[in-house]
Amino acid sequence: MNAKRGYRLSQLAERTRTRLVGEDLIVDGVGSVAHARPGQITFLHDEKHRPQLAATQASAVIMHSGNGDDAELPRLLSDNPLLTFARVAGLFHPADSAAGGVHSRAQLADDCHIGDNVSIAAGCVIGSGARIGDDCALGANCFVADKCVIGARSRIGANAVIRAQARLGREVYVHSGAIIGSDGFGFAQDGQSWVRIPQCGSVRIGDAVEVGANTVIDRGALDDTIIEDGVKINHLVEIAHNVRIGADTVIAGCSGVAGSTRIGRRCVIGGGVCIAGHISICDDTIIAGMSRVASSIKRPGQYNSGIPLQPYREWRKNLVHARHLNSMHKRIKRLEQARE
Amino acid sequence: MNAKRGYRLSQLAERTRTRLVGEDLIVDGVGSVAHARPGQITFLHDEKHRPQLAATQASAVIMHSGNGDDAELPRLLSDNPLLTFARVAGLFHPADSAAGGVHSRAQLADDCHIGDNVSIAAGCVIGSGARIGDDCALGANCFVADKCVIGARSRIGANAVIRAQARLGREVYVHSGAIIGSDGFGFAQDGQSWVRIPQCGSVRIGDAVEVGANTVIDRGALDDTIIEDGVKINHLVEIAHNVRIGADTVIAGCSGVAGSTRIGRRCVIGGGVCIAGHISICDDTIIAGMSRVASSIKRPGQYNSGIPLQPYREWRKNLVHARHLNSMHKRIKRLEQARE
Amino acid sequence: MNAKRGYRLSQLAERTRTRLVGEDLIVDGVGSVAHARPGQITFLHDEKHRPQLAATQASAVIMHSGNGDDAELPRLLSDNPLLTFARVAGLFHPADSAAGGVHSRAQLADDCHIGDNVSIAAGCVIGSGARIGDDCALGANCFVADKCVIGARSRIGANAVIRAQARLGREVYVHSGAIIGSDGFGFAQDGQSWVRIPQCGSVRIGDAVEVGANTVIDRGALDDTIIEDGVKINHLVEIAHNVRIGADTVIAGCSGVAGSTRIGRRCVIGGGVCIAGHISICDDTIIAGMSRVASSIKRPGQYNSGIPLQPYREWRKNLVHARHLNSMHKRIKRLEQARE
Repeated sequence: MNAKRGYRLSQLAERTRTRLVGEDLIVDGVGSVAHARPGQITFLHDEKHRPQLAATQASAVIMHSGNGDDAELPRLLSDNPLLTFARVAGLFHPADSAAGGVHSRAQLADDCHIGDNVSIAAGCVIGSGARIGDDCALGANCFVADKCVIGARSRIGANAVIRAQARLGREVYVHSGAIIGSDGFGFAQDGQSWVRIPQCGSVRIGDAVEVGANTVIDRGALDDTIIEDGVKINHLVEIAHNVRIGADTVIAGCSGVAGSTRIGRRCVIGGGVCIAGHISICDDTIIAGMSRVASSIKRPGQYNSGIPLQPYREWRKNLVHARHLNSMHKRIKRLEQARE
Repeated sequence: MNAKRGYRLSQLAERTRTRLVGEDLIVDGVGSVAHARPGQITFLHDEKHRPQLAATQASAVIMHSGNGDDAELPRLLSDNPLLTFARVAGLFHPADSAAGGVHSRAQLADDCHIGDNVSIAAGCVIGSGARIGDDCALGANCFVADKCVIGARSRIGANAVIRAQARLGREVYVHSGAIIGSDGFGFAQDGQSWVRIPQCGSVRIGDAVEVGANTVIDRGALDDTIIEDGVKINHLVEIAHNVRIGADTVIAGCSGVAGSTRIGRRCVIGGGVCIAGHISICDDTIIAGMSRVASSIKRPGQYNSGIPLQPYREWRKNLVHARHLNSMHKRIKRLEQARE
Repeated sequence: MNAKRGYRLSQLAERTRTRLVGEDLIVDGVGSVAHARPGQITFLHDEKHRPQLAATQASAVIMHSGNGDDAELPRLLSDNPLLTFARVAGLFHPADSAAGGVHSRAQLADDCHIGDNVSIAAGCVIGSGARIGDDCALGANCFVADKCVIGARSRIGANAVIRAQARLGREVYVHSGAIIGSDGFGFAQDGQSWVRIPQCGSVRIGDAVEVGANTVIDRGALDDTIIEDGVKINHLVEIAHNVRIGADTVIAGCSGVAGSTRIGRRCVIGGGVCIAGHISICDDTIIAGMSRVASSIKRPGQYNSGIPLQPYREWRKNLVHARHLNSMHKRIKRLEQARE
């Protein structure tokens, strides 16, 4: 059987190093528990969805080794069902193939270097001295400026822009509309007006990094902005000049990191988080969505600054007092002193 | 009279089912109360702007039926002046015409299907099996990937990207730079690193939906992301994978909705709002700008979580106590107990 | 010596009106204190970085007149070292040259007007009646719609969109992916659904304005959206219809300004700030990052509404009380009354 027709469960078990229990069926795709068709394989990530499994149309399931004893469907038992599912889904849905070649309506500088088996869609513009590694795929209307370097097996989405001599590692995935290497927000004050400080640095991006759709990563002002291996950045995120993000950190959508801040390794930054400039966040820090990070974090752990949502009338009654916390504090103090 | 020359007020009254009071002038355009030129028609949306009406240069006005008795200008009386104005303005400023045809520098796959009276600007790239409905207009440098479907009378702004076999309804307006069908932020943890979970779902968008400039809507992971009829999404908004947004809901700019969340019908979400994943917001919910929605909302109504702005010195005195609310609470309790 | 080879420090002193102390070396570039190579000139913006100066490889330094007496390196003494540095860096790193001419794969309307010494990259589309001033440079795949005007010496980044007859001043810098002149978020309610109000206004942008990457500026609904001279707007910012921003105001990334709001001159708006519609912010207002501005500001000064970040356990204990501030207030009052 090949990928287009299907896989035997025993083949999937072998490729994902999981254990097959039940009939060795052929499955032809992946689906959600709720909407899988017969012939597809689904997965159970969380035991709380177990009741849905009884009603699924799927023909097989990937589930946790510890919970598979009483299931009825043929199943792949895994210590990490989500990871197993990711790998199985990858067999049925490989990333966009790079087989397209260079489109006649792409515009390549004479002296750019294009690797083997590269796909460059219509409307792409590739600058002088740029280097595109083997097996890369570039979507429609991308721009890769002079001297930028893109490592092997990377994918660049439609309408993305890569400039400022940025160097991207291997297997980088730049989503559509992302801008890498924009000039940072650096100005010197001259009386009442602002004079742009030329941005002369670049961007270095490691292997297996993701840069989300319409996300913006600035070049450094003098030194480089650095995104280490395995960092995953979601959509509509702003990474300012000279930021350094440690390996395997993930940043959810709509967040922003101001200039020169360093974020450690393996951090998890929620959506809509704003992080001030010139601070340092240690490894293994978890920041809840929509938090405001104004100073350095020195101890790993989970942090939050959000205010719980309230019905308007309650909010109006309560939050007005947020402006009087100091006076409340003083009144309590006075009462305490009076009691003594 | 035709649209380019002007309309008699009686013609506008007939087309908008409003009542004309005063002289049946010809008007040749729309303008604001403050800046309309003679010959234009303006509108009065809110009675508090009534004093400006005395000074306007406009030749006619659209106003509320209940308030028009004492006005001096020729006027169209309406129960919904803003709606009447929208319709009158639409006569003078029809949406971009689709008369341009397919530009010679657009790149169309041999087997895509283009409807009648479609305009496709220079630099557009249309993929294999894509279908563009009648009377659509696509701006410069758009990308419509393989098998995407765009319903009749839709407009796609310049540099927009539509991918992942997205299906858009009729009269959809995708603003410039929007990305529809980007891969969602789904990863499985493998030790310290992250493995992408292939995103296999699509996006279904109903009729009369708007998707703002540089807004990003992810495809579903397995099932589809769904935007129902009449939803209006403003600029720079992120809609994550598998979100479902109910009909006629509006979402203002700079907001984000995390994965698998369901938003009901007729909701109004302010700007800069972040909504967590895997929650559910009921119909007719109103959320104030810059609120943080971390859990499901089960009762319709108005919600808020914002903190009022304060001068820096007061903020500094007050907000430090936000970190000590629990101790303040305990101190009050102790005082209360001592009193008993 | 020319710019490609280097400058004598005495030449730089003359051009920047600073005072040279020490040997009149030739320098060939700029670098940070930490990473400059020998032969480069660096700068000391803040005395707290003084210790790093002892270890720098740079051959010269720009520093404050008051602190230069005891330095060892040849130095340019300035009253504003950052400004001097900006100018020196500008000599070594001039903005992208406009020498490229009009690329054969750019698409220009027959009746657009292109000034002298303009560079228009591949994939650009320039509409009918558009005017591009002398010495402008337009990056790959830009779209400039009919009748838009761009002043002399402006730079437009790759994949930017300028529409709605926008008029840009001189020396404007529109970063990649920015959208200028998008239709604003204006709808009239018609029962449960929304009817678009045609957006008929334009955008006027003064001289020396910056519009950041993937930032969106709406055209006005009837009158114009106005960005005055010298305004600097960073990436991923939304400026809604009919906003007016006063001269020399700066707005950091990920912020949003809702419709019809007026922001004064010389304001400094931090990142991630949301500003409500139809309000007015006076000149010389400073707003801290991630603040929520819901009403007008009438006195200049510094404002803030952010909540300090806390470790999750403390946050959970404290912030629950944010929902009970009113009851805390009442309890204190009761205790005070009991004492009287």
